[in-house]
Amino acid sequence: MVLDRIKKVNDIKQLNEEELEELQEEIRDFLVENIAKTGGHLASNLGVIELTMALHLSFDLTRDRIIWDVGHQSYTHKILTGRKLGFVTLRQYGGMSGFPKTQEDPADAFNTGHSSTSISAGLGMAQARELTGDNYYVVSVIGDGALTGGMAYEAMNNASRMKTNFIIVLNDNQMSISENVGGMNQYLNSFRTSDAYLDLKDGVTNSLNRIPVVGERMVKRIRNAKSGIKQLFVPGMFFENMGITYLGPVDGTNIKEIRKVLAEAKRVRGPVLVHVRTIKGEGYLPAERHPARFHGTGPFDIDTGVPLYHQEKAHYTDVFSTVMRKMGEREPKVVAITAAMADGTGLKRFKNLFPERFFDVGIAEEHAVTFAAGMAKAGLKPVFAVYSSFLQRAYDQVLHDVCAQNLPVVFAVDRAGLVGKDGATHQGIFDLSYLSSIPNLTVMAPKNKWELSDMLKFAIAAEEPVAIRYPRGEACDLWKDQRAPIQKGCAEVLAEGTYAALFAIGSMVETAWQVRKKLAEKGIPTTVVNARFAMPLDKNCLRKLAESHPLLVTMEENVASGGFGEHVAAFLEEEALHTKVLRIAIPDCFVEHGSVGELKKALGLDADSVTEKILAELPEEL
Amino acid sequence: MVLDRIKKVNDIKQLNEEELEELQEEIRDFLVENIAKTGGHLASNLGVIELTMALHLSFDLTRDRIIWDVGHQSYTHKILTGRKLGFVTLRQYGGMSGFPKTQEDPADAFNTGHSSTSISAGLGMAQARELTGDNYYVVSVIGDGALTGGMAYEAMNNASRMKTNFIIVLNDNQMSISENVGGMNQYLNSFRTSDAYLDLKDGVTNSLNRIPVVGERMVKRIRNAKSGIKQLFVPGMFFENMGITYLGPVDGTNIKEIRKVLAEAKRVRGPVLVHVRTIKGEGYLPAERHPARFHGTGPFDIDTGVPLYHQEKAHYTDVFSTVMRKMGEREPKVVAITAAMADGTGLKRFKNLFPERFFDVGIAEEHAVTFAAGMAKAGLKPVFAVYSSFLQRAYDQVLHDVCAQNLPVVFAVDRAGLVGKDGATHQGIFDLSYLSSIPNLTVMAPKNKWELSDMLKFAIAAEEPVAIRYPRGEACDLWKDQRAPIQKGCAEVLAEGTYAALFAIGSMVETAWQVRKKLAEKGIPTTVVNARFAMPLDKNCLRKLAESHPLLVTMEENVASGGFGEHVAAFLEEEALHTKVLRIAIPDCFVEHGSVGELKKALGLDADSVTEKILAELPEEL
Repeated sequence: MVLDRIKKVNDIKQLNEEELEELQEEIRDFLVENIAKTGGHLASNLGVIELTMALHLSFDLTRDRIIWDVGHQSYTHKILTGRKLGFVTLRQYGGMSGFPKTQEDPADAFNTGHSSTSISAGLGMAQARELTGDNYYVVSVIGDGALTGGMAYEAMNNASRMKTNFIIVLNDNQMSISENVGGMNQYLNSFRTSDAYLDLKDGVTNSLNRIPVVGERMVKRIRNAKSGIKQLFVPGMFFENMGITYLGPVDGTNIKEIRKVLAEAKRVRGPVLVHVRTIKGEGYLPAERHPARFHGTGPFDIDTGVPLYHQEKAHYTDVFSTVMRKMGEREPKVVAITAAMADGTGLKRFKNLFPERFFDVGIAEEHAVTFAAGMAKAGLKPVFAVYSSFLQRAYDQVLHDVCAQNLPVVFAVDRAGLVGKDGATHQGIFDLSYLSSIPNLTVMAPKNKWELSDMLKFAIAAEEPVAIRYPRGEACDLWKDQRAPIQKGCAEVLAEGTYAALFAIGSMVETAWQVRKKLAEKGIPTTVVNARFAMPLDKNCLRKLAESHPLLVTMEENVASGGFGEHVAAFLEEEALHTKVLRIAIPDCFVEHGSVGELKKALGLDADSVTEKILAELPEEL
Repeated sequence: MVLDRIKKVNDIKQLNEEELEELQEEIRDFLVENIAKTGGHLASNLGVIELTMALHLSFDLTRDRIIWDVGHQSYTHKILTGRKLGFVTLRQYGGMSGFPKTQEDPADAFNTGHSSTSISAGLGMAQARELTGDNYYVVSVIGDGALTGGMAYEAMNNASRMKTNFIIVLNDNQMSISENVGGMNQYLNSFRTSDAYLDLKDGVTNSLNRIPVVGERMVKRIRNAKSGIKQLFVPGMFFENMGITYLGPVDGTNIKEIRKVLAEAKRVRGPVLVHVRTIKGEGYLPAERHPARFHGTGPFDIDTGVPLYHQEKAHYTDVFSTVMRKMGEREPKVVAITAAMADGTGLKRFKNLFPERFFDVGIAEEHAVTFAAGMAKAGLKPVFAVYSSFLQRAYDQVLHDVCAQNLPVVFAVDRAGLVGKDGATHQGIFDLSYLSSIPNLTVMAPKNKWELSDMLKFAIAAEEPVAIRYPRGEACDLWKDQRAPIQKGCAEVLAEGTYAALFAIGSMVETAWQVRKKLAEKGIPTTVVNARFAMPLDKNCLRKLAESHPLLVTMEENVASGGFGEHVAAFLEEEALHTKVLRIAIPDCFVEHGSVGELKKALGLDADSVTEKILAELPEEL
């Protein structure tokens, strides 16, 4: 195997043409075989094998820096830097990350995870290089989907100041995670294939028809020479207008061609964009056909592409999906918004049923929120479905555009809490903190699938902003018959006890229930309360619990700082309710990848750990 | 006076041409005279008098909606909607806001304050109009400075989906608050005057020279017909490429011309951008000459433009400015970044002395932070100087790009706490909450000007991210000789007492000192501690204080939720240190405009209010 000879960065440079071709196929097989076992990001990685090889052949990653935007497409890069063996433990607890990690390998220049950061980071490095007198190339590799993020535009707008080399590689696979949207996409499409120039040409002709009389003779001459126009409207004028030299488009499956353009790019002074056309899922038919399904995948059968493990219980996302469909039918003012996550957030059904009330804005969370604010101001009921860690992007818009005007926007915050294998950049463990300090915003979390449904209906009926956070994965289906109506700021008592009161929110209510059982086995009766609201807190309930229990345990899947438990503790302190408080929360740190179960155990959030902590608080006399 | 006849929206439509010309001058005089007395935003408002009149003449604001991006340029709009009398109380406590406020007048369609939101909000309204079957125009008025914000681009990228009318007015005054930067600005410049086409033409010719052989004959023909090229490369191709029809540029001082183009824009199906060239400060010479100084101004002498009140004490911004200059000399790795606020943040001196180490990225806080992260990763010591409320824009980048990688970026968070007259959108009252829940980030606030200097040096020397928040306005100059070295996580005891411990941070240390004096007069001795760090807290100090004082008072200029006092209270609760805690903080609400003094009084943050609250906690026996 040629692959066996790749043991460290730059080893690829020892290979001849034929061996490179073999390597290309070996990597493709390697990725399919391994990800079929471990799960991971497949389609995006299959699409950039040749591009990554060309980059490694063209640059020296012991000094040059490649920044992978989003970063889930860095598998071939990991292989070429000698991390082949890491794929056995890919995305597993203590194993290799699915994203670039500077702490994992010096050839990973910058940690990524969220979209559209690579040009900013790359530009920072390139500027630093000028000031420190160093000499290396900086390459930011960004997908066309990530180009819909405003940050990328802010960075391109600033790139024009670069007087020396800075290379942007546009990995154009014609989609973000699901499908790309907007004017920029249409623009890129217009020169994705040579034939597509025709459309542009028509557009130009139409534009020309609108031009007034001045210079008409010239315009006519050009009009008549349609075949030449496509040469004049060179692709990339958009980028050239931003002060960035454009090279391409180049076929992303052809290593030689890519290397040729990269060699040219190295010679350009100032910022240069290399447009590479790739195909998501390239070379593995099931992934080519269903790139969205193979974006992030669990283990699957290689021959058929069929998942090995079938989902048995409904996920929270499925519940959300169903309720949105129903609410869409019932309430014509409900509109749904996603930032390039129609599949992931479960809005696809809503999209299919109510296409005119569905808006995929691209990877553009900031715009999504203010767009929702505008809709709410004009009388609609927008629901923005978004992952917790990506809503961080729109913190200011939630505060400034929605909550400062008290507009009735619903935030359906999916993937809240630990998300597992995607690791630190994707854990949704900050939203209770950053959302609950925003005035006017109600922040809720359901204990089970029926409550998510009830909360969504409550939120849509509300005349003010509401956020509902719920976790990735299977929805809890306990307490089917306990369905007390949702009232703002009211918690729900699920079981009465004496010694300790477990005041839990969201996913931790189920854990509290397990803890109750474990303690009951030891003869220790506990109260379990489903908090429902992180903001406003149920202060009456808390007063009663504090007065009647020697120990109050807050439980949340969020960092401790600024979170649910801290609000509870501060309230009790303020009211001088001096019951003992035990706060169960994620310690104030970033949490790496691993299964949610492993992470909870490691962080002390599983039922056993919580039970132990409570037992440690037992007074002597018990 | 024609102006006297403008009593409500649409009254302007009763005027004839001559009267309109008079009104134009009357408004100009009115604005200069009033802002000379009250202070306010002058330059931007003088620049859009004619544009605003044209908009009011072209639309019916009892149904149509204008969204003013940023919003500080809405003075003429306020006059034309019958709020002339409000200018006596402009930006004063209980008076008229300097920004559009839906609660102030129904003709204010959407509240603004932060930059680059108007296209998103307008697009939301336009989409809602389609769904609700309403019939009104939506117009977003955005400056060229605000176009450097990525959100505006995200929104434009989405505008192409609009099938019906949506109008963007580009108010192009060739600057944001100080001066515009980047490729977009260069692009706009390229067709700001007809003569400037020449540059573009040259650029085109150069591009043409790079085109390969195919179709060469045609290219040659075009090359030879240079005079026609400027017609082909119509201005606005950038916007046309995004799927937005471009109209203009039009002279922003000519009401007739603007109306003509707006009439044309009304007929366009889909999104249309009207490019209006205006001049900041138009018609008042001092403001035309010094638009940055007259962006936001205090009272001034009309004849000379000279400020009426002179700054006597150094402001925190001045102190920052001086220290940055010194650190720039001392430490070649220090670089400074601003998002279009070189003047406001005090970085202008650094810029003049170290132009190659100064970066104004435009109104692009997100990019600024990740750009800083890239620089830090490559060995530099970036200092990002930014207003507290604008850093909200970059919450995710602070968390995901800087803190998750523990990169040594310094955040100099100016205008932290109450800022006064700019009101709700500009109050910096959330940063202690949103920053202190981010792992790895040290959050500090100085008690006086010397401490800001010491903290900045401490932060630059640190090998991890540090945020320093300091308020708008005069720097406290008490405790000149008390300058204990800064140690991470260590508070500073300023005075010892017995009854109560005042544990204050930043600006509230001075207030605590005043409170101490007031209580001392009543024979009540108090301890005053300068917390210095909001994160990490000085836990040892807190333990000692709690053990030795019956009352612990936390004092901060930040909302209560998730803030400094809550962290303290939760810590005490956790450690079962049951001293009584009184939390002095801003209630969890948005705070409107007024002087800082008035606002503090109203919110219970002034020395008198705090003293009273403490006295109310006095035990009977005292």
